[in-house]
Amino acid sequence: MDELAHAGLGPRPFARWADPEDAAVPSSKVPVWLVRRLGGLTPSPAVPVSDIPVPPSALPSAATDALRSAVGAAHVGTDAPARLAHAGGQSYLDLLRRRTGVEVAMPDAVVSPGSHAEVAAVLSAAGEHGFSVVPYGGGTSVVGGVEPVRGTAPDGEPRRAVVTLDLSRMDALVGVDEVSRTATFQPGVTGPRAEALLAPYGLTLGHVPQSFARATIGGYVATRSAGQASTGYGRLDDLVVALRLATPVGEARAGTGTPNAAGPDLRALFVGSEGAFGVVTEATLRVRPAPAEHRYELWVFPSFERGLAAVRAFAQDCPRPPDVVRLSDEEETRTTLATQGAAGRALSIYVRTRAGRTPAVCVLGWEGAAGTTSDARSAALPVLRAHDAIRVGTRAGQAWRRHRFAGPHQRDVLLDAGALAETVETATDWVNLPHLYDAVRTALITSLEGCGTPPMVFAHVSHIYPTGASLYFTALARRLADPAAAVAQWADAKAAASEAIRAAGGTITHHHAVGRTHLPYLEGEIGPVGARALAAVKAALDPAGILNPGVLVEPPSGAGGDGVRPRE
Amino acid sequence: MDELAHAGLGPRPFARWADPEDAAVPSSKVPVWLVRRLGGLTPSPAVPVSDIPVPPSALPSAATDALRSAVGAAHVGTDAPARLAHAGGQSYLDLLRRRTGVEVAMPDAVVSPGSHAEVAAVLSAAGEHGFSVVPYGGGTSVVGGVEPVRGTAPDGEPRRAVVTLDLSRMDALVGVDEVSRTATFQPGVTGPRAEALLAPYGLTLGHVPQSFARATIGGYVATRSAGQASTGYGRLDDLVVALRLATPVGEARAGTGTPNAAGPDLRALFVGSEGAFGVVTEATLRVRPAPAEHRYELWVFPSFERGLAAVRAFAQDCPRPPDVVRLSDEEETRTTLATQGAAGRALSIYVRTRAGRTPAVCVLGWEGAAGTTSDARSAALPVLRAHDAIRVGTRAGQAWRRHRFAGPHQRDVLLDAGALAETVETATDWVNLPHLYDAVRTALITSLEGCGTPPMVFAHVSHIYPTGASLYFTALARRLADPAAAVAQWADAKAAASEAIRAAGGTITHHHAVGRTHLPYLEGEIGPVGARALAAVKAALDPAGILNPGVLVEPPSGAGGDGVRPRE
Repeated sequence: MDELAHAGLGPRPFARWADPEDAAVPSSKVPVWLVRRLGGLTPSPAVPVSDIPVPPSALPSAATDALRSAVGAAHVGTDAPARLAHAGGQSYLDLLRRRTGVEVAMPDAVVSPGSHAEVAAVLSAAGEHGFSVVPYGGGTSVVGGVEPVRGTAPDGEPRRAVVTLDLSRMDALVGVDEVSRTATFQPGVTGPRAEALLAPYGLTLGHVPQSFARATIGGYVATRSAGQASTGYGRLDDLVVALRLATPVGEARAGTGTPNAAGPDLRALFVGSEGAFGVVTEATLRVRPAPAEHRYELWVFPSFERGLAAVRAFAQDCPRPPDVVRLSDEEETRTTLATQGAAGRALSIYVRTRAGRTPAVCVLGWEGAAGTTSDARSAALPVLRAHDAIRVGTRAGQAWRRHRFAGPHQRDVLLDAGALAETVETATDWVNLPHLYDAVRTALITSLEGCGTPPMVFAHVSHIYPTGASLYFTALARRLADPAAAVAQWADAKAAASEAIRAAGGTITHHHAVGRTHLPYLEGEIGPVGARALAAVKAALDPAGILNPGVLVEPPSGAGGDGVRPRE
Repeated sequence: MDELAHAGLGPRPFARWADPEDAAVPSSKVPVWLVRRLGGLTPSPAVPVSDIPVPPSALPSAATDALRSAVGAAHVGTDAPARLAHAGGQSYLDLLRRRTGVEVAMPDAVVSPGSHAEVAAVLSAAGEHGFSVVPYGGGTSVVGGVEPVRGTAPDGEPRRAVVTLDLSRMDALVGVDEVSRTATFQPGVTGPRAEALLAPYGLTLGHVPQSFARATIGGYVATRSAGQASTGYGRLDDLVVALRLATPVGEARAGTGTPNAAGPDLRALFVGSEGAFGVVTEATLRVRPAPAEHRYELWVFPSFERGLAAVRAFAQDCPRPPDVVRLSDEEETRTTLATQGAAGRALSIYVRTRAGRTPAVCVLGWEGAAGTTSDARSAALPVLRAHDAIRVGTRAGQAWRRHRFAGPHQRDVLLDAGALAETVETATDWVNLPHLYDAVRTALITSLEGCGTPPMVFAHVSHIYPTGASLYFTALARRLADPAAAVAQWADAKAAASEAIRAAGGTITHHHAVGRTHLPYLEGEIGPVGARALAAVKAALDPAGILNPGVLVEPPSGAGGDGVRPRE
């Protein structure tokens, strides 16, 4: 059995995104084609979860008692299934460790508060009993943001225990203001639940990251998330109207309903703070009328370069650009076309005939009130024509929309088959985008070739802004057989990509957040004065350093880990 | 003579916005009509600047020498004209004090750096010699943001001298990235100069606050400015791509060309930091193609309430709302119509006949590429019709655009005539807007009636967002004759308005910033945890507390002033 109880959410696979028998798993030919294309893979099933060693919980009984009185005994778990179910996030290396059972870190307890007051009580207990607290929404971090790390007290003394704060019980819609078009959520509301709660009002949040099925409102806020429709609906930064947080020094509130000039915008200090400054207990977000029409189309440009010029024109010159813009590079285009079966082969011939030998596919999506998407689409046509795009049609566009959350499922299949499969993302201004693209691609290929595992590396642009755009790379290769070698295989490639991003002037993360994985690169991006400002806020709001140790701010005495596991 | 030398910018009036003989001053019937309407005013000319007592500079000679070596002797002014020219900002009380010569505070020296390195050298000298530094762009603060306050060292010891850092020499365009549509400016570039520097590239910043003529890029950033066309062009917050600052602990940079998820957005920590954390030395801002068309129209709604519903629909439901939206309440509408002369009287009759007895005028402006404003305007028509708006026409709209920067000039005339004239601004979400409007209006009227000076109070909405809007009040009354009584007359009304804003859930400032005037209300808005975060950043980046003392963060030991002048 590869399943574990997940407080309040039923069973969840341990070393996969989803159970292969789950009826909700979309079927897709993509991973099958990729496995064949990579060749020479050795299927490698996960070890049974029952084989994972679970050390005894190190939480002292007085601390357990304090947690029980904070949230009720039923909501404090120190048993193996609860602890295993919170053993880190969903990065490739997280899954790899859980698949092989090597170096699986788990919290000493899982606590599930039901209210702001209970979150505050847990933080008080942590301060009093000296354990660390890792806030946990949907557990979908791919950057080590929810790793159960014990951390270090400000005096350099290692902490003895770490508690994961599972926010899944706090899943209510607190209120809707239909006049101001805002909705206030508790942090544990997942993407689908947010939409279900808003549906009776005819409203939508419209925030759809790939982790939509499990990611939570609190996680969106903590990580400065960006959804697939960010061009139309805005990034999470743009949607946050007001926040309430529990911090170790008391309740924090930020935001007054509109932008203002009352000093620095403190919403922005908490959005992206990754649980290091406080725990989001309420988020008031902008909502809008649920679209009556969804129009998705696939277009093809003669090259990635021409496509970049077109999507830049969307961002800079279109009063209303498409709500979804996703431009694939030439390699990703080959994959897309090759996995459409017989229709795909015909399509591939059609595309090469009409668009040339280096086609780049682009998904465009328009959403809106009845009768409005047609106008919006018409406004985009001159840009498409000016860049020699040809229309493939709505069927392929709608197929993309149907499979928009399939990535984690496809990765399950690839990992089972013995592949390495992970993504790297960044962003930069338009003028620098081609350089950054080349640099990261080359770094990934060179590093993985150096392991004797020549990879497939492809990329797309999925978030466009007037000044620049994101780049999202996928790297696939044969996975090295030895567990430690397999970890090093990707850790080295990731380091090479991160160094390339730094050297080429990209951001270390466009939307995956910093977590523990990117922390070594953060100061290089925000500078020593920026890092000093974050450290000052951390020290002021979390003076005992109990919250998510090793995230956002370098831990005391430079000790990245805590003995639970060395840093990658 | 009411003029003073202003380093690098020629002479400038001391107690007025502009010289009455200045050919650039727009002629307007508004102030003449208002003076007549208020009635019973006693003309009250300013005392000659030569009568203002100028105490000797308290800057020790070693500090003066250090400044001279930092920026060159020619750029350090300790003479009376230079010091008087930097005696505070442009609030009504600032002008009142300078008109009467009572309690005019001035810096001990004015220093004008020419580069980032020279700013850094001035901050080093300040740390070494223990004087305070007040960054100064165009000097247009209306909230005490550029008051020369000596402040207090972190140990509670009052500082002996204050130096104003005049950034007007740093007025270069550092670079333009036409592909990414960004431009990098030095901080002393004024609004008109920014446009002139961008014109050869066919680009515009499009940021037009009423202080446009003098306000600077650095000031825009420091105060989180919003321009009159913020609906179309965005607030300054939205335009900032990257920043460079000199702080007492070193150079800071924020922003990487696009939004990202690399921790909290540190741009937002510096935008609105009002010179308390560092001095902006470069700002990279989003720019766009200069519009070929400007279409401004005046419309009239049957009531302010109907107008509010319409402008809310613009913000929430129009894919491209008008770039300028400015809705007057009924009292402001009366003033607007009454000051149009014979045409205005005819117009007034027309409006009342067509729109009813409580008309509310609304300026709408569309700007864009050739041939695009007509489409944008067409998209707004259904909203206007749905709310029974009638069109007055483009002549009145264009007249508004011509006089859009006239406010400070009109205030000069009103102050000469013996009036009190000041503005109060705030913002809130749509659902709360009517309540906030009533509360602030009532507070201003009640307070000024209590002085025996029944006021005119009118308001407009000029910045709309999907979730809410700004409110901008103008208060006019007979000014009390005694200088101290006149100060108290407005200080009391302002306090009443600020309390009303707090109680009604508005922000203490939508775009004027906090300065020293609003600081007592800041913690009420951002909460104790927010205030603690700002204090922590202040202590980390300006550990000696030399930068703009009394701004943003309560000074040590609660001492608001420093003996130069008690706080209002």
